[in-house]
Amino acid sequence: MRQTYHVRLDALGDHGARMCRLAGDTLRDATKALLDANLSLAEEVINQDAKLDEMRSDTEAVALELLALQSPVASDLRIVVSALWIVADLQRMGALAIHVAKAARRRHPHSAAPAAIRPLIAAMGATGVRLANQAEEVLRTRNLELAHQMVAQDADMDELHQRVFATLLAPTWTAGVGPAVDIAMLGRFYERFADHAVAAARRVVFLVTGDNVGGDTAPALTAPES
Amino acid sequence: MRQTYHVRLDALGDHGARMCRLAGDTLRDATKALLDANLSLAEEVINQDAKLDEMRSDTEAVALELLALQSPVASDLRIVVSALWIVADLQRMGALAIHVAKAARRRHPHSAAPAAIRPLIAAMGATGVRLANQAEEVLRTRNLELAHQMVAQDADMDELHQRVFATLLAPTWTAGVGPAVDIAMLGRFYERFADHAVAAARRVVFLVTGDNVGGDTAPALTAPES
Repeated sequence: MRQTYHVRLDALGDHGARMCRLAGDTLRDATKALLDANLSLAEEVINQDAKLDEMRSDTEAVALELLALQSPVASDLRIVVSALWIVADLQRMGALAIHVAKAARRRHPHSAAPAAIRPLIAAMGATGVRLANQAEEVLRTRNLELAHQMVAQDADMDELHQRVFATLLAPTWTAGVGPAVDIAMLGRFYERFADHAVAAARRVVFLVTGDNVGGDTAPALTAPES
Repeated sequence: MRQTYHVRLDALGDHGARMCRLAGDTLRDATKALLDANLSLAEEVINQDAKLDEMRSDTEAVALELLALQSPVASDLRIVVSALWIVADLQRMGALAIHVAKAARRRHPHSAAPAAIRPLIAAMGATGVRLANQAEEVLRTRNLELAHQMVAQDADMDELHQRVFATLLAPTWTAGVGPAVDIAMLGRFYERFADHAVAAARRVVFLVTGDNVGGDTAPALTAPES
């Protein structure tokens, strides 16, 4: 029984790491679909929805069962509670990546990203994927130093997000209102994706140390004055 | 000890309901600040941030302590786990209301809502506040029928959200790119606020029935084709 218990506890961490990998892959593909106006890739990403739901509900089921039947304490309890928090963040990351893919599908055969904004979208995509990969590593290795470094990377994402707003509001923006609205929403999706990746990594800090710093590090939206 | 235990379990539900009330009040005031370009009211809303964080961390501390020291089972365990999920939704609701207030502050002394969009913003605000109030009632009374009715109200919010996009993209929109970007972001904040209110109410369904339907009912963003 004890062995099964520890196998199931370990499975929780592994579920989280695999779900994190899926969320990162989904954002990578969604960004590619958006930049290349690739409809079939966008559809593929959108179809990951059911898989993400299933991974979340499987993880929650294992966590709830462990709580109910094993009454874990101390660090084991923190593993279970963190898993409940972390899968919520990971599912949101997947959902946000799917929003990006839906924007690509909605605009097809056109690209939803006018030329002026493409480098910024590519950079936001790359930053988001990097954060997801780092969160996966933090989940697998419990490397708290890396968890703390991710906060700085999140600041990079915020800066890219500010540059997106600045580009939309500059007199050089000639693509009009519709594409600007699309891009503003896309910028928000990438920025939230990064926030959730950092939040997931912070939950690992709680898991290891018991220090509950809160999972939501979302900075306020600070669009440039204009 | 048992009595203290049940007092603390009850406190969890009460914390959630009070936090829900605060989130609803915050959205009501933020919407008023936005529509009236009322800077002092916007500042007041923004200052609720610390209070929301404190309420969340207090609730989490009680929940974690109950899990660690009392090893609750069955319906007691569901109360504790639901509380952890619900306060996360409630804190996001508060954070989204604060985003609305920040938009009001950023545009002051101008209104962030051009005349063409004011009735829709007012309607989204009213719908969000109503959903928060209903979620509070569900938390207090465990009225599952009301929890299910909230899903239909959430559809009202989605329809308002669609009308916001349609207004921004219509040829009659003459306010330009900057205000359109602002309003698109605001629409997203109201829509997400409603999603979290519904998610919190759904967690009460789990609390009562043990049926874990998942907390995230966020529909995909479906901006109108254009």
